[in-house]
Amino acid sequence: MELIAIRTRKIVEGDDIVSLLLSLYDPRDLDIVAVADKALAASQGRFVNHDIEPSEEAMKLAEESGLEPGFAELVIRNSDLVLGTAERTILTVKDGILVANAGIDHKNAPIGFAALWPEDPNYEARRIRDEIAKRTGRNVGVIIVDSRLSPLRMGTTGFALGIAGFRGIRDYRGKSDAYGKRILVTTLNVADDLASAAHLLMGEGDDLVPFVIIRGAPVEFGDFDPEELKISPDRCAYFRPIYGRLYEMSGRISGRQK
Amino acid sequence: MELIAIRTRKIVEGDDIVSLLLSLYDPRDLDIVAVADKALAASQGRFVNHDIEPSEEAMKLAEESGLEPGFAELVIRNSDLVLGTAERTILTVKDGILVANAGIDHKNAPIGFAALWPEDPNYEARRIRDEIAKRTGRNVGVIIVDSRLSPLRMGTTGFALGIAGFRGIRDYRGKSDAYGKRILVTTLNVADDLASAAHLLMGEGDDLVPFVIIRGAPVEFGDFDPEELKISPDRCAYFRPIYGRLYEMSGRISGRQK
Repeated sequence: MELIAIRTRKIVEGDDIVSLLLSLYDPRDLDIVAVADKALAASQGRFVNHDIEPSEEAMKLAEESGLEPGFAELVIRNSDLVLGTAERTILTVKDGILVANAGIDHKNAPIGFAALWPEDPNYEARRIRDEIAKRTGRNVGVIIVDSRLSPLRMGTTGFALGIAGFRGIRDYRGKSDAYGKRILVTTLNVADDLASAAHLLMGEGDDLVPFVIIRGAPVEFGDFDPEELKISPDRCAYFRPIYGRLYEMSGRISGRQK
Repeated sequence: MELIAIRTRKIVEGDDIVSLLLSLYDPRDLDIVAVADKALAASQGRFVNHDIEPSEEAMKLAEESGLEPGFAELVIRNSDLVLGTAERTILTVKDGILVANAGIDHKNAPIGFAALWPEDPNYEARRIRDEIAKRTGRNVGVIIVDSRLSPLRMGTTGFALGIAGFRGIRDYRGKSDAYGKRILVTTLNVADDLASAAHLLMGEGDDLVPFVIIRGAPVEFGDFDPEELKISPDRCAYFRPIYGRLYEMSGRISGRQK
């Protein structure tokens, strides 16, 4: 498997990122094109000013986290569920994804602005895939890459915010392990593993690597449900123990459900 | 960056995994050698029979999770903290790592046995690195790769259980983003991103890929503290909100501290 970092100039609103990619790289069939979420946000001008009136809840979350009250308000408005705070973090659930600050980020956004996630990351992945197919005839997979924190780990790793054109999980249930025993429960999150690999080359700073081409990835190409990457809270090995207990103790999760 | 999967026969107790690797691959300077935790466990015979007497707590956890009582007892004995249960999972903290079942796994272990983590994964990484240096003169980095679940995500991704010979994080604090703004808090977990990339090629079944060579990885080689990969619960963006609230509500985390 080979990963090729595609360095570009800074992407600005109105840029056609597919044209930019194709001006720098000629894709092959069965390449996977990883696109940094922030590059997509920049091209679509998904930067918002967070100089907005904070609610009482936002003031409280801002005080707890050390974030600006207007930014906290923006996070609340973009979250499905607010779970709590840590240093410069409001822990939220958005679109079934556990993420700091509803995926909203000051980093790599103009001063005074924050970048939002795409409205529909899987749609954006499909759109980029279809555009590449239309213009080059190539059958590629696409991953929109964002980064996240993991429990008790320092620093960010990549994850697949949206995918198109390949199966995001590899299901080992019913297959054999090295001792010939049937595997009961394991699936492998192919998309997140790939997103992590690309994330390492994209970096988190002024690296200007919005695209990483992944060649020779052991994935199944075709049309699959991108929502397979997510698991509901009641089936999640982390959420069921933790939030199950929170529910038992408090009757509800603190926060709000839209 | 290039990743090369090294396929082998099944590794058994007493195998010298460095010899096995070097019989199949001639490392270059600044390669990173990813080693599957389960291959190391097999070579060291770290398989344990879980036909042991369960405690009352183990019986309760087994009933909640659907795991065998003896296995639950093994998990308790190998955990620093038991947080709760989900389907076939006891969520634990071990050596500062949040992990299902204290890292103990039936998969790719002989029938009736489960595989344990190495006693000291960072020591094992260093030992493998030093052996490769001694026998080949090559300066490589080493990652011991295990897999984990992530909150609200389906399936496993790779993470770095132990590392040696390179810096596991890349610190962006004080550096510039694409807009020239100073980055406040971001670090990137290089080791976990690399472990994910390798994990995709190692797989979770009878793939028999215990080694993945990563060439051209953007890492800083040298001697760094492998404990940098971990963060304490009170600084963790997930643990502080979640467990902070549990503490407030219950006065203690359910489970036990060794």
